[in-house]
Amino acid sequence: MTDSDNLELSRRRLLGTVGAAGAAGLVVGAAGGAGISAALPGEDTAGAGAGGAPALTTVGATSVMFHGKHQAGITTPLQSRGHLVAFDLAPGAGRKEAAALLRRWSVTAKALMSGKAPAEDTGVALDAGPSSLTVTFGFGRTFFDRTGLTSRRPAGLDPLPAFSSDALDPRRSEGDLWVQIGADDALVAFHALRAVQKDAGDAARVRWQMNGFNRSAGATAKPMTARNLMGQVDGTGNPKPTDPDFDRRIFVPAGGGGAPEWMAGGSYAVVRRIRMLLDDWEKLPLDRQEQVIGRRKSDGAPLTGGTETTELDLNKLGPDGKLVIPDNAHSRISAPEQNGGAAMLRRPFSFHDGIGPDGTPDAGLLFVCWQADPLRGFVPVQRKLDRGDALSTFIRHEASGLFAVPGGPAEGEYVGQRLLEA
Amino acid sequence: MTDSDNLELSRRRLLGTVGAAGAAGLVVGAAGGAGISAALPGEDTAGAGAGGAPALTTVGATSVMFHGKHQAGITTPLQSRGHLVAFDLAPGAGRKEAAALLRRWSVTAKALMSGKAPAEDTGVALDAGPSSLTVTFGFGRTFFDRTGLTSRRPAGLDPLPAFSSDALDPRRSEGDLWVQIGADDALVAFHALRAVQKDAGDAARVRWQMNGFNRSAGATAKPMTARNLMGQVDGTGNPKPTDPDFDRRIFVPAGGGGAPEWMAGGSYAVVRRIRMLLDDWEKLPLDRQEQVIGRRKSDGAPLTGGTETTELDLNKLGPDGKLVIPDNAHSRISAPEQNGGAAMLRRPFSFHDGIGPDGTPDAGLLFVCWQADPLRGFVPVQRKLDRGDALSTFIRHEASGLFAVPGGPAEGEYVGQRLLEA
Ligand code: HEM
Ligand code: HEM
Repeated sequence: MTDSDNLELSRRRLLGTVGAAGAAGLVVGAAGGAGISAALPGEDTAGAGAGGAPALTTVGATSVMFHGKHQAGITTPLQSRGHLVAFDLAPGAGRKEAAALLRRWSVTAKALMSGKAPAEDTGVALDAGPSSLTVTFGFGRTFFDRTGLTSRRPAGLDPLPAFSSDALDPRRSEGDLWVQIGADDALVAFHALRAVQKDAGDAARVRWQMNGFNRSAGATAKPMTARNLMGQVDGTGNPKPTDPDFDRRIFVPAGGGGAPEWMAGGSYAVVRRIRMLLDDWEKLPLDRQEQVIGRRKSDGAPLTGGTETTELDLNKLGPDGKLVIPDNAHSRISAPEQNGGAAMLRRPFSFHDGIGPDGTPDAGLLFVCWQADPLRGFVPVQRKLDRGDALSTFIRHEASGLFAVPGGPAEGEYVGQRLLEA
Repeated sequence: MTDSDNLELSRRRLLGTVGAAGAAGLVVGAAGGAGISAALPGEDTAGAGAGGAPALTTVGATSVMFHGKHQAGITTPLQSRGHLVAFDLAPGAGRKEAAALLRRWSVTAKALMSGKAPAEDTGVALDAGPSSLTVTFGFGRTFFDRTGLTSRRPAGLDPLPAFSSDALDPRRSEGDLWVQIGADDALVAFHALRAVQKDAGDAARVRWQMNGFNRSAGATAKPMTARNLMGQVDGTGNPKPTDPDFDRRIFVPAGGGGAPEWMAGGSYAVVRRIRMLLDDWEKLPLDRQEQVIGRRKSDGAPLTGGTETTELDLNKLGPDGKLVIPDNAHSRISAPEQNGGAAMLRRPFSFHDGIGPDGTPDAGLLFVCWQADPLRGFVPVQRKLDRGDALSTFIRHEASGLFAVPGGPAEGEYVGQRLLEA
């Protein structure tokens, strides 16, 4: 047996193993009903039919449910590719056109997320499975005036305050409509982006569009917290779907609290394009880098000891009598206990758009965070970070968006129907 | 047993299977000795040590050999992420600085490709395995004047002719030095890019930098030919490493043929940033799209019938008496038999840099092709395509580079040593 036979064998065993799981049609319930299933792709997906063709590996075969209490793409595990795209309604387009657009988008998102190709397809994602595709839709503040729905605009969409360190480009900020696309395959994600753009037709025009990525599934031995392009373990402090107050913090409750009923099960997304000044950052010695965050770079453990999941000891002093986790450490300043319990679910993509006009890398974090109320999530934390975060020297907020992301559609419903047809 | 237990179990079985293959230290010889091995990562890679920690899946665990007859990244299977970066030597830097740079780069490439982190690392790829990383180095025409090596410049670097459909941006074209990075993980690829940039130090400055991608490993049920962003199966006609004349066509022979000895085992890379006019392309009906190429979109089979690997029947007439594969079909015009046997190995990445200033997608193909002699590969084929290719209406060549990529370094050697120290 040659070495290459050997590898081929192990490949086949790998496919076989996962194939069996796929055939069993596993469905894993994610928090709040955005289910994930590892299944064979639909008949419209070439390359892996049910009739004896080999099954997809879990990368391709995993699909996320479109219908549910919440939209997909919020508690869904990070995907390796992402596109963010904002649209403005076309001049003359109003509520009727917007409703028709959301209906088209919902049909497309549902089909693509289950691995089916829409009619007159570009074919770009043929062969591939759904690859954990999610397509998530949100409304910006300006949407409500343009559609005559100003009276139904939620307080959650009140403009974010200006922060002193902001360097925002309005052309890459905000927008009437926002779509977040994530998938574990680049062609599947691109394919969905083009389908969403095509559906926009004459009703809406792209305002801005950004591309992001995360680590590939399988690049690490076991699922691990993400790293960002500064090399930090990023996501540790996130609330967990199993936390008792997770839903209350991240999702708008049904009925009451002053939130409009059409936002029940929804969430607010704050989107910030945060450039990292990597040339400066990479010159900082490791120990100083670690003090900027308050955690070890190697494994994300607090500088006060333990492992990644150990709580920060914010009062611990070092042998020099100074705080081990400095006063201006990012982890200290952003921690819920320092912000009256303010919490958000950070679910970012990294971005890298080559070299900027100034010769430094145009790279950083497409920071996306989710919360039931921006005033109890992003706003108070960013207020504090804006003033005292050691990280500030190494980052620049270049664009910003705030979007109301309605709850997931029930069977037969389209996203936003409860706003647009009430 | 719950569904989520089930998925966890299948995950573990998956890791176990591949772990076993990894532990066996499989090494698959690629054409010409650029070996690929699926092995446990080196000790410097956190998250998967040899001491009981779970093994990486093949995505992360696969490594490509740095040393060999040819450089890696030529016959290596397409990776899902790629970076192309060109450097110009800094003013005042000459042969000595260039030699030191290639030495630094070789040390870095070798370490990273085997999954080891260099000293004072950014940590961005910590946790991940080598993930099929390849780093490939080439010399541009201008390199030779700047280093006083004009007399050793190979004829293969004579400038490409101008083509009538060229719309080349000189700031994104050519360069003294060229580096191609490919990996199956975005952070591994980005990490290598930053390491290569850091090594450049004062010796060289980035001239241009481009990002690309291909489908993820595991997105399809079985390994398949790539698709590009027009949705076509792309790569079918490529010469295979098992073809009897593969080496002769793709690699510069040792001794003779007028080629300089330092290029033995090397190859010439032609790099073209080819924008796809996707808004126009996607409006074209499927049957017309297929006539542009001469192959079916669904599976890449020739319009004259058969499967993807069936030969094109260039003389077959349809019921209407016309050629089934039209006169101006891309597959016809580019076929070796139409070009005196001219052949190249196409190994591209797709690119997508968002929306261009004109509002259309800034997306297309980072076309990279490899040949022993550009005058028997890219040049005659592009001459013909330039005049009569049906695809021309839908693409635009925006940047171009031609690089001499020397053979792979022997143990103890650095890339280009035979040029720089002879
Ligand atoms: C490029 C910009 C940023 C980088 C590189 C960054 C990085 C990090 C890192 C490494 C951690 C520690 C690990 C973890 O808990 O995830 C962290 C925690 C955190 N960050 Fe950021 N961050 C950035 C921007 C922001 C912004 C804009 C906000 C919100 C306004 C924010 C809010 C938080 C929160 C809430 C935590 C968790 C604190 C805890 O629960 O202990 N971060 N960040
Ligand atoms: C965006 C630009 C291009 C696209 C979308 C494209 C697409 C394709 C497709 C779909 C095929 C048929 C499948 C295959 O054999 O791979 C093909 C074949 C081929 N193309 Fe291109 N191509 C492009 C540019 C070029 C250029 C610039 C050259 C070289 C000058 C080239 C040379 C070839 C060759 C040699 C073949 C194989 C022909 C054969 O052996 O039958 N292509 N291309």
